[in-house]
Amino acid sequence: MKTHAERQLKICDTTLRDGNHAVAHQLGHADIVAYAKAAELAGADLLEVGHGNGLGASSIQVGRAALTDMEMLTAARAQLKQTRLGVLSIPGFATVERDLKPALDCGVDEVRVGAHCTEADVTRQQITMLREMGVTVKGMLLMSHMASTKTLIEQARLIQEYGAHAVILMDSAGAYTPAAVDEKVGALVEELDIEIGFHGHNNLGLSVMNSMAAVKAGATIVDVTARGFGAGAGNAPLELVAANLHLEQIETKLQLFAALDAADLAESTFVKRIPTNDSVTIASGIAGVFSGFASPTRRAAERFQVDPREILMELGRRGVVAGQEDTIIEVAMGLAQKNSLYEVI
Amino acid sequence: MKTHAERQLKICDTTLRDGNHAVAHQLGHADIVAYAKAAELAGADLLEVGHGNGLGASSIQVGRAALTDMEMLTAARAQLKQTRLGVLSIPGFATVERDLKPALDCGVDEVRVGAHCTEADVTRQQITMLREMGVTVKGMLLMSHMASTKTLIEQARLIQEYGAHAVILMDSAGAYTPAAVDEKVGALVEELDIEIGFHGHNNLGLSVMNSMAAVKAGATIVDVTARGFGAGAGNAPLELVAANLHLEQIETKLQLFAALDAADLAESTFVKRIPTNDSVTIASGIAGVFSGFASPTRRAAERFQVDPREILMELGRRGVVAGQEDTIIEVAMGLAQKNSLYEVI
Repeated sequence: MKTHAERQLKICDTTLRDGNHAVAHQLGHADIVAYAKAAELAGADLLEVGHGNGLGASSIQVGRAALTDMEMLTAARAQLKQTRLGVLSIPGFATVERDLKPALDCGVDEVRVGAHCTEADVTRQQITMLREMGVTVKGMLLMSHMASTKTLIEQARLIQEYGAHAVILMDSAGAYTPAAVDEKVGALVEELDIEIGFHGHNNLGLSVMNSMAAVKAGATIVDVTARGFGAGAGNAPLELVAANLHLEQIETKLQLFAALDAADLAESTFVKRIPTNDSVTIASGIAGVFSGFASPTRRAAERFQVDPREILMELGRRGVVAGQEDTIIEVAMGLAQKNSLYEVI
Repeated sequence: MKTHAERQLKICDTTLRDGNHAVAHQLGHADIVAYAKAAELAGADLLEVGHGNGLGASSIQVGRAALTDMEMLTAARAQLKQTRLGVLSIPGFATVERDLKPALDCGVDEVRVGAHCTEADVTRQQITMLREMGVTVKGMLLMSHMASTKTLIEQARLIQEYGAHAVILMDSAGAYTPAAVDEKVGALVEELDIEIGFHGHNNLGLSVMNSMAAVKAGATIVDVTARGFGAGAGNAPLELVAANLHLEQIETKLQLFAALDAADLAESTFVKRIPTNDSVTIASGIAGVFSGFASPTRRAAERFQVDPREILMELGRRGVVAGQEDTIIEVAMGLAQKNSLYEVI
């Protein structure tokens, strides 16, 4: 087995999966074909494709995608030669028979199985099965800024034991700083044999530097999207990570100008709004709250006439995670009551 | 005299000066009044106001501002109490009698005198005179990534000798990395008695982290703009620097939510396009070429049918600086000739 230092850095382009969040999962056939061509030319190692929440997630509750999983994967597959095709699988959304097996039949090269950072055991069944089938499979720990380094090591070790080829720390709230990346990625690189990856978001304006910090700490997989295309404050931008890797003379398969071209193409075709940081996405990063809470928080703030940032800061203090969206309303009501008390006084 | 460690960090908000570049110097009276109020509430230490190139720069060649220097300064002055009012003076554009004295009569609290990073002597006359008049005056070294640490120390010492209260390193090309900031700012903090500042641009997506690196290296002045409002890839965003200072518990006069409000206000009123990084602004950062070269480079690329990024990379190799815009055409022609040679072969 190669040591961490011997492994070449791999760039995972998740524009056509995580980016789908930014357009309510409405990426179309032409978008996928054009961008897959560009990602191949850019030299991305992996192109992740699908609904924002991964295989099997398209639904009225989470949002219906414009295309089925298989339509998206088939469209991308036809454009890729060197760049490998990847999918996200979150157990609960994705099931083996209905979603994973047909995806593999479509020619998917790699499956990334995700779970909350303290619930790695949820990934066991899928990782074990995929590994037995000879598929490249990676584990992803969501909202990983919330867990201590010790916990992350324990959870990542479980993913390694299940047979995954890598574990990827997801900065789902865009709440990491380079120092925290250095500590957590560095510890995992030290303690695990499999590859370590980092997936950054930009709520604090640090996604590029966090990605570079991950590489310097020994991560050999970095996730990016063209122009940071993604929900809320967006992802680490492919083109800026490419520029910084070039300046630092860190070798990858990326072709610098082709990577810049891919991002320009995305902007000129399917990127409706280049991600930026408004008050709410920044407060979400400060509070360390899941980016997906931004929209329901804005709605609750409007309804109860309170500051959305106060809601997010309180959600952060309570350590709320995805699935606990009801708490948003509770916190907003509480703030509204407090405010009206002050008005009386 | 206070040591560097005893000085509180000061935030210079240059939204209404550097940001003016992004709207061809067309900020109007209502924009200035509204934003000055917001900057005061945000707790900015200094609000820099004026034409993008500073006092006296409004002209057909550089671009006519919507308002005169005095109209802009008077509008801002009326809104500021705690926040001090600043102007940029670049000798050549700004003269003492015509520009500086009337500006001081308008109630300007601070003048920042700028010159290319190897030409500090250009600032001598104005700094000396302003210091003798009892005005707070700071020196700015433009394109400072181009000079060695040794040269910057020599140039900054000149500015100190002239009597300036601080010297500010300008990352005019957005070409710094945090490691370079740490080295250069750290050396100036070590070698000089006056305050050191940093003014970051975002061509490489590092402006926030570079600003934080400057603070950690001992800088006590950091320049920002709301939403990064500025030419090309924009400046270090006020709201993201505020968020990171909050997270790192670094004390300033900034009020976090009010700083976020100021940026939201700017976006909803006068920011026409939130700065982002396209291919050309990134190549400009990689090459270390002045951001102002982006537009003429795009035009030359179009005219000679060559890749604008190749032009910028060559300009970077030649170490071209502002004032040498003719070289853009020369390089573009050279690339076009080279391309047509290859076509023949």
